[in-house]
Amino acid sequence: MRAIVLLSGGMDSLVSTAIAKDLGYDLAALHLNYGQRTEHRELKSFTSICDHYHIDRRLVVDVKHLSIIGGSSLTDKTIEVSKADLNRDVIPTSYVPFRNANILAIAVSWAEVIGANKIFVGAVEEDSSGYPDCRREFYDAFNLTIRLGTKPSTHIEVLTPVIEMKKWEIVIRGMELGAPFELSWSCYQSNDKACGVCDSCALRLRAFEQAGIRDPIEYVNRPSYI
Amino acid sequence: MRAIVLLSGGMDSLVSTAIAKDLGYDLAALHLNYGQRTEHRELKSFTSICDHYHIDRRLVVDVKHLSIIGGSSLTDKTIEVSKADLNRDVIPTSYVPFRNANILAIAVSWAEVIGANKIFVGAVEEDSSGYPDCRREFYDAFNLTIRLGTKPSTHIEVLTPVIEMKKWEIVIRGMELGAPFELSWSCYQSNDKACGVCDSCALRLRAFEQAGIRDPIEYVNRPSYI
Repeated sequence: MRAIVLLSGGMDSLVSTAIAKDLGYDLAALHLNYGQRTEHRELKSFTSICDHYHIDRRLVVDVKHLSIIGGSSLTDKTIEVSKADLNRDVIPTSYVPFRNANILAIAVSWAEVIGANKIFVGAVEEDSSGYPDCRREFYDAFNLTIRLGTKPSTHIEVLTPVIEMKKWEIVIRGMELGAPFELSWSCYQSNDKACGVCDSCALRLRAFEQAGIRDPIEYVNRPSYI
Repeated sequence: MRAIVLLSGGMDSLVSTAIAKDLGYDLAALHLNYGQRTEHRELKSFTSICDHYHIDRRLVVDVKHLSIIGGSSLTDKTIEVSKADLNRDVIPTSYVPFRNANILAIAVSWAEVIGANKIFVGAVEEDSSGYPDCRREFYDAFNLTIRLGTKPSTHIEVLTPVIEMKKWEIVIRGMELGAPFELSWSCYQSNDKACGVCDSCALRLRAFEQAGIRDPIEYVNRPSYI
């Protein structure tokens, strides 16, 4: 019973990995480098988390083309660049359109080759309201595409175990499962201590505060977000 | 009215491009390098065909990870390697699982960035009976995934204008539209003259023979396949 976990190194993918492990799957882990600022730091988290869970089958894929394509929207003067804001209800223009479909397609290809039937993804609807490809409907449609686009003998399915959780509930679930949060990385500004002020740090710190638990990683600044 | 054409450089993608051009679309062309033996020759065809149709907006993406993933099935001793055979009704093990979904996902990301509403793909069901991701049902499901996974303001749709044609019908349609078959490339063995004996050459030569037209490209061997 083999499963692939998409493991960015962030808290959502960490807890999804913990859930998959808890369900008894033989795990393989997929990580994507797409030219992000903290690429090296995320890879370090990926490696540490794989070591922790004794995941030997690992695949790291470079998908630079996603940033090349996505970057076009940032350099296109006709598109306004949006500000990071936890209360945003619009899609940030820095987002790479259809990125999750690209990542899932790679995962499905690999799943068919290594005989994995499940793909665990740490997508969360709550903190991604503006991203169309983080919603349950999208994953349902993608699963239909998988059924029709892979060999009939395979039965590959994408699972999103934390998609309907609040971020703080993900923290709680992870603690229950003994997930090593100290190995995870969410900041997309720094490579040493987490900055504490970027969008991703803000979401993470708020989640830990709401859960009543101190985030074990180090921060340059540790503001309160509740 | 902008459209992306997936242009490998082969006859099916050439004729799909000719059809899109004939429909009056402002074209952008996407080409994938995935470490195939004739990568350089295919890129040359891509460039020549773009020049012919005055397509200035071009994107060439390296997706080496597809061959890395797909290669696993070839090196996995538990999987039998199938022989090339025009009459095959099984999926060749050299095929990269879910490859078309990977390619389409890249195309959709680019389409959203450049504001293209249509993506033309030269998929053909006839000569791809064993490939699950060449069938109409797969494309229908993928279009649903696009609708749910992209911004509501976009209306991106994948079109497969030759999917139900026989290969010889594609030749006829291309001739009607004045498609420059002499610029296209199908062989996956050679980089100079087409070999005439590989699976892809065989399908192409048979198609031209059945259409009653001489294939304008040069072959080392030009066997008859009817």
